[in-house]
Amino acid sequence: MSLELRSRILAELNSLILIDPHTHINALAPASTTLADILGYHYYTELAHSAGLPREQIENPDLEPRDKVRLLIENLAPVDNTVQYGWFVEICQTLFGFQEERITPENWEPLYDHSVDLMAGDHWAQEVLKKSQLQAVFLTNDFDDPLEGFDTSTYIPCLRTDDLVFHLAQDDVRTRLENATGVSVTDLSSLRASLTNRFDHFTSRGARACAISLPPNFSPHPVSDGRAENALSNVLAKGAAAEQSHLDALAQAVFWNLAEHCDSYDLPFDLMIGVNRRVYPAGVYQGQDLYDSRVSLIQYRELFNSFPGVTFPISVLASVTNQELTSYSWIFPNVITNGHWWYSNTPTYIEHDASARLEAVPRTKQIGYYSDMYKLEFALPKFNMYKQILAKILAERFVIDRRWTEERAVALGQQVLRGNVESTFMAANRMAGG
Amino acid sequence: MSLELRSRILAELNSLILIDPHTHINALAPASTTLADILGYHYYTELAHSAGLPREQIENPDLEPRDKVRLLIENLAPVDNTVQYGWFVEICQTLFGFQEERITPENWEPLYDHSVDLMAGDHWAQEVLKKSQLQAVFLTNDFDDPLEGFDTSTYIPCLRTDDLVFHLAQDDVRTRLENATGVSVTDLSSLRASLTNRFDHFTSRGARACAISLPPNFSPHPVSDGRAENALSNVLAKGAAAEQSHLDALAQAVFWNLAEHCDSYDLPFDLMIGVNRRVYPAGVYQGQDLYDSRVSLIQYRELFNSFPGVTFPISVLASVTNQELTSYSWIFPNVITNGHWWYSNTPTYIEHDASARLEAVPRTKQIGYYSDMYKLEFALPKFNMYKQILAKILAERFVIDRRWTEERAVALGQQVLRGNVESTFMAANRMAGG
Amino acid sequence: MSLELRSRILAELNSLILIDPHTHINALAPASTTLADILGYHYYTELAHSAGLPREQIENPDLEPRDKVRLLIENLAPVDNTVQYGWFVEICQTLFGFQEERITPENWEPLYDHSVDLMAGDHWAQEVLKKSQLQAVFLTNDFDDPLEGFDTSTYIPCLRTDDLVFHLAQDDVRTRLENATGVSVTDLSSLRASLTNRFDHFTSRGARACAISLPPNFSPHPVSDGRAENALSNVLAKGAAAEQSHLDALAQAVFWNLAEHCDSYDLPFDLMIGVNRRVYPAGVYQGQDLYDSRVSLIQYRELFNSFPGVTFPISVLASVTNQELTSYSWIFPNVITNGHWWYSNTPTYIEHDASARLEAVPRTKQIGYYSDMYKLEFALPKFNMYKQILAKILAERFVIDRRWTEERAVALGQQVLRGNVESTFMAANRMAGG
Repeated sequence: MSLELRSRILAELNSLILIDPHTHINALAPASTTLADILGYHYYTELAHSAGLPREQIENPDLEPRDKVRLLIENLAPVDNTVQYGWFVEICQTLFGFQEERITPENWEPLYDHSVDLMAGDHWAQEVLKKSQLQAVFLTNDFDDPLEGFDTSTYIPCLRTDDLVFHLAQDDVRTRLENATGVSVTDLSSLRASLTNRFDHFTSRGARACAISLPPNFSPHPVSDGRAENALSNVLAKGAAAEQSHLDALAQAVFWNLAEHCDSYDLPFDLMIGVNRRVYPAGVYQGQDLYDSRVSLIQYRELFNSFPGVTFPISVLASVTNQELTSYSWIFPNVITNGHWWYSNTPTYIEHDASARLEAVPRTKQIGYYSDMYKLEFALPKFNMYKQILAKILAERFVIDRRWTEERAVALGQQVLRGNVESTFMAANRMAGG
Repeated sequence: MSLELRSRILAELNSLILIDPHTHINALAPASTTLADILGYHYYTELAHSAGLPREQIENPDLEPRDKVRLLIENLAPVDNTVQYGWFVEICQTLFGFQEERITPENWEPLYDHSVDLMAGDHWAQEVLKKSQLQAVFLTNDFDDPLEGFDTSTYIPCLRTDDLVFHLAQDDVRTRLENATGVSVTDLSSLRASLTNRFDHFTSRGARACAISLPPNFSPHPVSDGRAENALSNVLAKGAAAEQSHLDALAQAVFWNLAEHCDSYDLPFDLMIGVNRRVYPAGVYQGQDLYDSRVSLIQYRELFNSFPGVTFPISVLASVTNQELTSYSWIFPNVITNGHWWYSNTPTYIEHDASARLEAVPRTKQIGYYSDMYKLEFALPKFNMYKQILAKILAERFVIDRRWTEERAVALGQQVLRGNVESTFMAANRMAGG
Repeated sequence: MSLELRSRILAELNSLILIDPHTHINALAPASTTLADILGYHYYTELAHSAGLPREQIENPDLEPRDKVRLLIENLAPVDNTVQYGWFVEICQTLFGFQEERITPENWEPLYDHSVDLMAGDHWAQEVLKKSQLQAVFLTNDFDDPLEGFDTSTYIPCLRTDDLVFHLAQDDVRTRLENATGVSVTDLSSLRASLTNRFDHFTSRGARACAISLPPNFSPHPVSDGRAENALSNVLAKGAAAEQSHLDALAQAVFWNLAEHCDSYDLPFDLMIGVNRRVYPAGVYQGQDLYDSRVSLIQYRELFNSFPGVTFPISVLASVTNQELTSYSWIFPNVITNGHWWYSNTPTYIEHDASARLEAVPRTKQIGYYSDMYKLEFALPKFNMYKQILAKILAERFVIDRRWTEERAVALGQQVLRGNVESTFMAANRMAGG
């Protein structure tokens, strides 16, 4: 009974057209051209490396795409249990017509050739969007992205601010900022002007969010102008060799100023909380980051209180933080739950975390899912994974346990999958606490 | 098969008469008089506020009950997914004869009028108790509560001690203490005498527990008399302006002295661990508290070792702490698990936490549930929620997974629901480690 | 459907012959001689004590085995809900032919007598191994164990190093080390020589792993020779009265040196992370340890990076740490997941933790389970518990949720149960990151 119920709910969820509210798509090259683009995703390179394949082989710069795919296929058997591997197989099956259960050294070449032909089609990206039932995807743009050459109603800009907050001491980051803005950063006032320039630029091109990823020990607080000016002077003089206390104070000042800009420009500020960068520096590209799960949203207490007019869609890296996220979203009007991020984006954690949110956070304040993808082909299997889990939760925890009607359960699923993406990011006047 | 089994077990659990071991009932006004009392529960005001309703509207002092109910009903659609909203609907259905699935701006007024009539009945509180199968409820009494005017076999006093431990520096708290005891607190000796006076008062009126809620960073330890005397002098001289180190030392000294009194008076000491107060000061009344889930029972190691004769029923605010609670209860004779508190009182966390306890903590050392309610009407839906989850766990994890008989599973459920409340709080000689 | 599927998968898993990769078996007395050996396991004594039985009675040195069993049987009713009690009943049923559901004061004596007869048989240990489908078990040997008098292909040595790292300041530990090695520890060089001596001794007798349990606050890092020499001098001069900073530095130096030896000798280094010793000193023997769940694998970052050639099978004490373990194993080639340890070795936590691993960690990098037993009789019920949960996960999360074939699911189960024990510990050249 429960499985049929789940299937019926899933069928309803599958009929939705979606907007993916967080990806790393390059709008100028959104889709893949060979399977190497797909297997080059860090999930495959890092898992193959974890299972024993040396980084030097994976990242050999002389590897042709076909040879890179061969290398990885020959080394993915040890990870064929993972849900990440499952995404790859599903892509091959649903987008490239592959018929088997696993891609092996024996059967991959016809798949490779056939997929190259398909990807070479004039409208491949649009076909993928259509098959994935995607209307639009959010991007993650560097602050100096010109945001030109693409349709911003399909590829929606989002201002990524990690470099501004954490890497402003690097000469190249300041140079990029000056080149992009025409503003020479010499003091706090010109720094603020350069940030304002970026918000003008991004919002004029249809940006719908500001975003940042944050380490577990970050705890935002305001910094006095004097302290910020002092920190900035030191950083301008010494660059990355500035003292840690100045680097920290400047990061705080920039972060707080970004929140002020989000307030002024009515942009949600996506916070992705909990990642430690380069924990495993010998790892493959993008496969070096891990985390310390000992983080608390109490660290963000002052921020949430200080900016009641800013909506903060929050992603947490560790499932243990999800209960705090659930509780803070239940209490703070400006905190909303946002997807299932990275190391928590696997079925067991999604199921536990989404269940807790669905039963305790206002239904209007939950962004169900985003794909975080780098290439368009991944939205389909990732959203399918989420929708299957969502259907399971709705079937078991709402229709069976709480005796809801199917219609009501489906409506809740539709809202977290689609409706709230619109109301949070696309509405003229987004809700925020008062 | 599993659903029928679950139903059979639930039917058995539903036949029990219960004692609710922790509530905030006012014994002089235990039940509601209008739906405004019910929707005034912080769960509804804070969720409506979280979903966008301004606090000023919710807490408008000029609002008549009917208008307050209208306001909230008009703003609860965004939270109708929550289990908390489900409690409200269940109250309306089971206590007021409401027939529909949701309470809406279109259908609430007849419900309001009908419920007012019912609540005006001479024996409404008793009827609610009866329909809820409640024999008695524990109260949460201020230390200066006269404990008069009610039947203490139905409304069982419990000495709440937060004010004594954390707010003794406030003039009004000390004044209340002096007024209640007739003892003027001038030094450590008179402070102890005043606490003894309170234990005499409470136990003479049938109190069955002492209770306190504690912030995540609290870690009890004994304080020497000299240090305590010094802290008290400072606090008596400066009040709330005393130095933090003195405030902290006094809190430690009072807490430890309360434990000593629990030992002497053979009262269990309910510890509710993990809440940070006023994290969101702009929130609605009672909707401002949150938490830092980074707390450990290792902080209570010295307490548990120092008072083997005191039973400590422990509630934890975050589900992550539940495994420690399970383990500490499995090892320490004087530590027992107590209900599912506040932000962990939602189905997903109850299911995970209760499952872990039921399979690893002695069956005699688990208080299954308390309602934490402010008005009697809430016991029914809250206990029903718990009993349904308990039946699910017993069916799936005991009868199916572990091949228990249904009778044996039901007996375990009955013990944690009812038997242990009696043996922990009501027995002449409660068990404690030796 | 799901239950039949689960049963079919379980039947396949049950056909495997196993190697138990972590136990505390005494190879010279591997099996029990009376039920007192079985009920003397700390799980029963500590649970009976937790439920009210005084330690003095349990540990009365004058108790004969039969009387000790009587005492415990008379006091186990309060813990008959626990899975630990379930192991005992299953042992009685499967190894001793007991037919009832619970062992009671009324029915235990015939069981006692019959079991004594069986255990007195010439080949009892071998019979237990056979009925448990165990080919071999790993031991946990003190560093000065002569490793003589048993078949090391059935009882596989493992060098336990807690004493060396944490108790070298104790005179008797150093004396034992000198007696075992013939090396007098007077400086860093002789200390290293004595460790090398132990690795020679253990590997020459077939040791397949080095192991240690670690407190939550331990964070390994290298110590300069000068610092280590200074710490060692101080410890040699003052013994356990040495300053904490010296004790800590010496522990770090020894730990790091052990990792270097694991590298040279190609031995996996089992890390069992998170236990606080003697939290409840009035508890029964082996029933005094608990933990602080606030631990992170980020503390091991430098270790994992410094020893890419050492395989670290990691056990974590708290379920909350399991997500980090899953993520670190997914990224670091030399980190693998190892069983379900102690307070996390109960069904709810096993199910949650194993599910997360199975779907995100390379299938080659997961040691499914070890029994941690002190007497051979416990492997059977403990592995059965794990296999039942594994079958449930494979049925529900792989065959149903992810549409795997049963064959494929069974193969994954077999690999984590058996194949990976061999490839991790028994292969000539174990995998480690490059």
